[in-house]
Amino acid sequence: MEPFRVGILGATGLVGQRLVERLVGHPWFSISGLGASERSAGRTYSESCRWVLGSDAPREVSAHRVRRCRVDEFDDCDFVISALDTGVATETEPAFAEAGFAVVSNSSAFREAEGVPLVVPEVNSDHLALIESASRAARGYIVTNPNCSTTGLVVTLAPLAERFGVRKVIVATLQAISGSGLDGHRAWELVDNVIPEIRGEEGKIESEVGKILGRREGSVIRRAEIAVSAHCHRVGTLDGHLESVSIELARPAALSEVVEVLGSFKGQTGALSLPSAPSSPILIRSESDRPQPRLDRDAEGGMAVVVGRIRPCPVLGLKLVLLSHNAVRGAAGGALLNAELLAARGLLSRRVRG
Amino acid sequence: MEPFRVGILGATGLVGQRLVERLVGHPWFSISGLGASERSAGRTYSESCRWVLGSDAPREVSAHRVRRCRVDEFDDCDFVISALDTGVATETEPAFAEAGFAVVSNSSAFREAEGVPLVVPEVNSDHLALIESASRAARGYIVTNPNCSTTGLVVTLAPLAERFGVRKVIVATLQAISGSGLDGHRAWELVDNVIPEIRGEEGKIESEVGKILGRREGSVIRRAEIAVSAHCHRVGTLDGHLESVSIELARPAALSEVVEVLGSFKGQTGALSLPSAPSSPILIRSESDRPQPRLDRDAEGGMAVVVGRIRPCPVLGLKLVLLSHNAVRGAAGGALLNAELLAARGLLSRRVRG
Amino acid sequence: MEPFRVGILGATGLVGQRLVERLVGHPWFSISGLGASERSAGRTYSESCRWVLGSDAPREVSAHRVRRCRVDEFDDCDFVISALDTGVATETEPAFAEAGFAVVSNSSAFREAEGVPLVVPEVNSDHLALIESASRAARGYIVTNPNCSTTGLVVTLAPLAERFGVRKVIVATLQAISGSGLDGHRAWELVDNVIPEIRGEEGKIESEVGKILGRREGSVIRRAEIAVSAHCHRVGTLDGHLESVSIELARPAALSEVVEVLGSFKGQTGALSLPSAPSSPILIRSESDRPQPRLDRDAEGGMAVVVGRIRPCPVLGLKLVLLSHNAVRGAAGGALLNAELLAARGLLSRRVRG
Amino acid sequence: MEPFRVGILGATGLVGQRLVERLVGHPWFSISGLGASERSAGRTYSESCRWVLGSDAPREVSAHRVRRCRVDEFDDCDFVISALDTGVATETEPAFAEAGFAVVSNSSAFREAEGVPLVVPEVNSDHLALIESASRAARGYIVTNPNCSTTGLVVTLAPLAERFGVRKVIVATLQAISGSGLDGHRAWELVDNVIPEIRGEEGKIESEVGKILGRREGSVIRRAEIAVSAHCHRVGTLDGHLESVSIELARPAALSEVVEVLGSFKGQTGALSLPSAPSSPILIRSESDRPQPRLDRDAEGGMAVVVGRIRPCPVLGLKLVLLSHNAVRGAAGGALLNAELLAARGLLSRRVRG
Repeated sequence: MEPFRVGILGATGLVGQRLVERLVGHPWFSISGLGASERSAGRTYSESCRWVLGSDAPREVSAHRVRRCRVDEFDDCDFVISALDTGVATETEPAFAEAGFAVVSNSSAFREAEGVPLVVPEVNSDHLALIESASRAARGYIVTNPNCSTTGLVVTLAPLAERFGVRKVIVATLQAISGSGLDGHRAWELVDNVIPEIRGEEGKIESEVGKILGRREGSVIRRAEIAVSAHCHRVGTLDGHLESVSIELARPAALSEVVEVLGSFKGQTGALSLPSAPSSPILIRSESDRPQPRLDRDAEGGMAVVVGRIRPCPVLGLKLVLLSHNAVRGAAGGALLNAELLAARGLLSRRVRG
Repeated sequence: MEPFRVGILGATGLVGQRLVERLVGHPWFSISGLGASERSAGRTYSESCRWVLGSDAPREVSAHRVRRCRVDEFDDCDFVISALDTGVATETEPAFAEAGFAVVSNSSAFREAEGVPLVVPEVNSDHLALIESASRAARGYIVTNPNCSTTGLVVTLAPLAERFGVRKVIVATLQAISGSGLDGHRAWELVDNVIPEIRGEEGKIESEVGKILGRREGSVIRRAEIAVSAHCHRVGTLDGHLESVSIELARPAALSEVVEVLGSFKGQTGALSLPSAPSSPILIRSESDRPQPRLDRDAEGGMAVVVGRIRPCPVLGLKLVLLSHNAVRGAAGGALLNAELLAARGLLSRRVRG
Repeated sequence: MEPFRVGILGATGLVGQRLVERLVGHPWFSISGLGASERSAGRTYSESCRWVLGSDAPREVSAHRVRRCRVDEFDDCDFVISALDTGVATETEPAFAEAGFAVVSNSSAFREAEGVPLVVPEVNSDHLALIESASRAARGYIVTNPNCSTTGLVVTLAPLAERFGVRKVIVATLQAISGSGLDGHRAWELVDNVIPEIRGEEGKIESEVGKILGRREGSVIRRAEIAVSAHCHRVGTLDGHLESVSIELARPAALSEVVEVLGSFKGQTGALSLPSAPSSPILIRSESDRPQPRLDRDAEGGMAVVVGRIRPCPVLGLKLVLLSHNAVRGAAGGALLNAELLAARGLLSRRVRG
Repeated sequence: MEPFRVGILGATGLVGQRLVERLVGHPWFSISGLGASERSAGRTYSESCRWVLGSDAPREVSAHRVRRCRVDEFDDCDFVISALDTGVATETEPAFAEAGFAVVSNSSAFREAEGVPLVVPEVNSDHLALIESASRAARGYIVTNPNCSTTGLVVTLAPLAERFGVRKVIVATLQAISGSGLDGHRAWELVDNVIPEIRGEEGKIESEVGKILGRREGSVIRRAEIAVSAHCHRVGTLDGHLESVSIELARPAALSEVVEVLGSFKGQTGALSLPSAPSSPILIRSESDRPQPRLDRDAEGGMAVVVGRIRPCPVLGLKLVLLSHNAVRGAAGGALLNAELLAARGLLSRRVRG
């Protein structure tokens, strides 16, 4: 099968670099276009990108000429993955969709928009029904993945919601620096320090969970009625968002049942063999001091959610700790998994150059 | 007034050093004895102590000869403050109390013991009634302060409990490295990492809050009926425990009321002018990204609890962030404030050398 | 004596904040004007300054109205201290000098300019001769202090140069984050990392040492003939530049002599009792693992240079480690000490409002 | 070819874990025995080892039963690689050698011993002549690799020494935490701090360079006459030793020549195709702020030495920055490369069980 040609919008940022890293050598997709800001356009990827994931950007893309993020410059691509900042995404993503592109977005711009599926493949692949008619008509659409700190949470809540029902969730996040991008915090801010605010993050978590766990009724998503409260913190780790969660289930469950349900979770993609899908979406650790960001963030290539310390909560009944790689599972890898899901479901098409 | 002569048990550890730092030049107390392990005994304080609070241990104590933590070696002291590890404290503190010493303890050994007051002066000075008869009879006793992460929490909950009632609390802590003492975590553990466990800590918080906020009935403390759930994390900061808290009040309160109640809290020590007491036990910050450990831990000499981000919690009703200096307010400063309270209440006496 | 009224140019940056911190309560100077960029002008200091040295900017200045850094807005000041970035300083400092102000500058703009003394009071107070005639004529002038990493080095070299002669110096610096200012490195750059470059820094060190240790001949400075080679590194500490130095002396010296010469160094300010002068410009530590930034940077209020590990160098003869607080001794404190020196030498005058 | 069966002495420590990581799936060697302290013996590798290189120890060894480091327990191995601490190594390694084992050691115990080759394959493979007769007689011997901070330095100096001669070297190291092992520094020591001492390290570097770059004359190594001076610092990075070096060459060289000589260095192993050998022992970077530990330590699987900032030194003529992965190139990978060299040179033999 010839690979789909993918364009990356926002290819020089941190999530963009993660996308490049994972798309080089991808079995289903090949990088056709790299888009960035006006300032970068025209220079090679190596020149315009300050590569931070190791010594050098992959040889396969280093000489690639960077483009502006405009529809007419991505004519040679079948679809695009967007790692644009929200502001730019707000204008750019609809333009691509209107031009007929499937836009697999990591930005927050349209996550809450009606008609735009907010998808974590293991959890709510069925929400893709929202774009199936557009797809059938070879029209463009936007599919998004959730916020980096929502992803790990929702993967963990999904099997619990299905089996026991979930009523209330209080989550405290300890989020890594890479979550704020290349131009985020200054170094002095996080030396010997923690910042107890990530602007907009708590609201995103509190809102996105309900949409993702919502039930599709026709082409409408009915939000799940789960009360979610988030406390977000930026800590001085590089990668890996850790989350401590208290959960009230709708019906009582023994801890052993919870462990069993989480550990055996396969999700809605089990049968599809998506290249980026972890063999198990959730890995359970039994040590009392795990998961830890540096040790566990790369489990299953950064695509697993690692859960530990499953224990009773004196207030809500159940508590646990989870970790997921914010830049992989929570961003680039999540978007890529969505793209793979679209491909597997026949929702990507080969564009023919106008 | 001649100062009371104080002996420090466990003077070379991290809390011991903080005690030394704060007792040098203290208006009511003078250091008479410095106790440490067998290994240190006989050497000067400078020789036996690896001072970590700056360039050098204070000149006033550097040549002081360190003693073993035995009753007969502290004959020249009026009372002792104990910064011993729990294991050693379990045997040593009762020995001192039985020999007639007032033992102001920072250890966890007897916090939950009946008859031992667990005191935060602003919150429950009245619990000292438990030892008043012992004191009157010039007999020894133990008074303790809570766990370093309990202190900030309970100072914040106290005015809320008094005004609105508190039913449920979920707290996530981001605790500093100094909380694990001089021999705690190895350096590689916390580089680019977080450890989601502090052994025993969650249970201490969940239990101590109820005792401290409990009501004294005669010489018995009736625990407050508050369900508390703690998630504890060790992060790579040096000092200052940050805590994100969700609270269910017994009766509804507007956020403005909460701010007012917290900000105007004076506590039970307001009139006593204790030397270590902060002018306000709680400082409110209105910025959306505060308190932060490095910026706010030294507020009021490390004795204030700094509270910020007071906002609605979708699950429990109210949430906020608090910070207190674990080694000062949560340990050495807290113990010292207890000692000052005892002095002000006439519960310390001058021992006469046998 | 009525204090001189000082204006701070660049008052909201990191060095500016350190100046404010040290000028509040200063016995000889009082803050009259706080200058910052166009953007800040007109707002209060608290509003325009992101204070990073603790909870809050000092109450004494928080309501102060910030001005633009223009001569006509500092009419009520007797002199100015400049913490401006080099670019702005290049235009602003001469304007103030031409208007008759003594400009005590921390910027690098005019350090190498002929006629501008580059002064570390303990080392080369006599270089002030360069501006004495200007001062006598009540005309303005610029006096500068060296680069933050030059200061500690030159304080250490000065007594060695005087007693033994210094021929060659190789210095490796491990510089703190605060040296790059509020808008310096991004947080991800220094997590689990070191950056082996500080732009322009090596050249500054290699050049400034010769000027400062140079001999004044009339109103000209003849540079000292010392070959200096610097290797500069940015590490993840907050404050305190550590420097490991190999030195070739002009005539052989026993290590004990070196220790004696360094430890007894008083410098050219010994008799002047300048308020910011450390009681000893150099503190010697005998432990094999000192100085360390966090433990030793605040020695003598951050104004001492702490030297340790004095030992033979197999290549150049002598090696040692030194530490100085980059933002205090190496910047704000150094500039302030220069201002105090000017005052003590009668080189400041009270300006009368036109 | 059937793989040689290797035993790892000290398999649970940090270097031992790196050896395990690199030996799993190795084309020439298979792990036959894992040795550790008395305390660990009898338990599985997973139980006895606190694995710190990711989520879990490799499945291939996790159930392996750990042995004591005694000759009679390694009867099923053809040779051993020792990652023992110096103290234990001093007794254990000779016992294995006397029993006929080839002992490939990473410890410092016998590096300076006459008759023991101190080998970096690219640099001085010919030094193996020292053990060739022992090997021919099927007797045991010890071969060592240098200190973790010596390796990168000597790989860089070797081509310069061969082409231009090297007379003097001053090196400042910024060494990572993993260099101090699992039981090294406490976390509080390196928060916002640097430690300017690594016990014994400077002497090792200053001595080992001369032996490695020495000339073999018959079965004797004549040390190279190079004056080396080292300044060692521990910084808060996890892996990767950075070294800033000033070098005096014996005959002048243009910078371009230096770049060419370093960049084209193939070393003495070029023809052997050792599995762990990097394709280029030295990688040159042209950016002014590289190499950096986090970005460059894993170049060529952690086996390359990355060199940058080649520039003139005002004192010794030439200066540069180099980086090598201390735990890989400087320890486990270096030892393994030595073992591969021994195999390729026919110096390993298959032991037959007594």
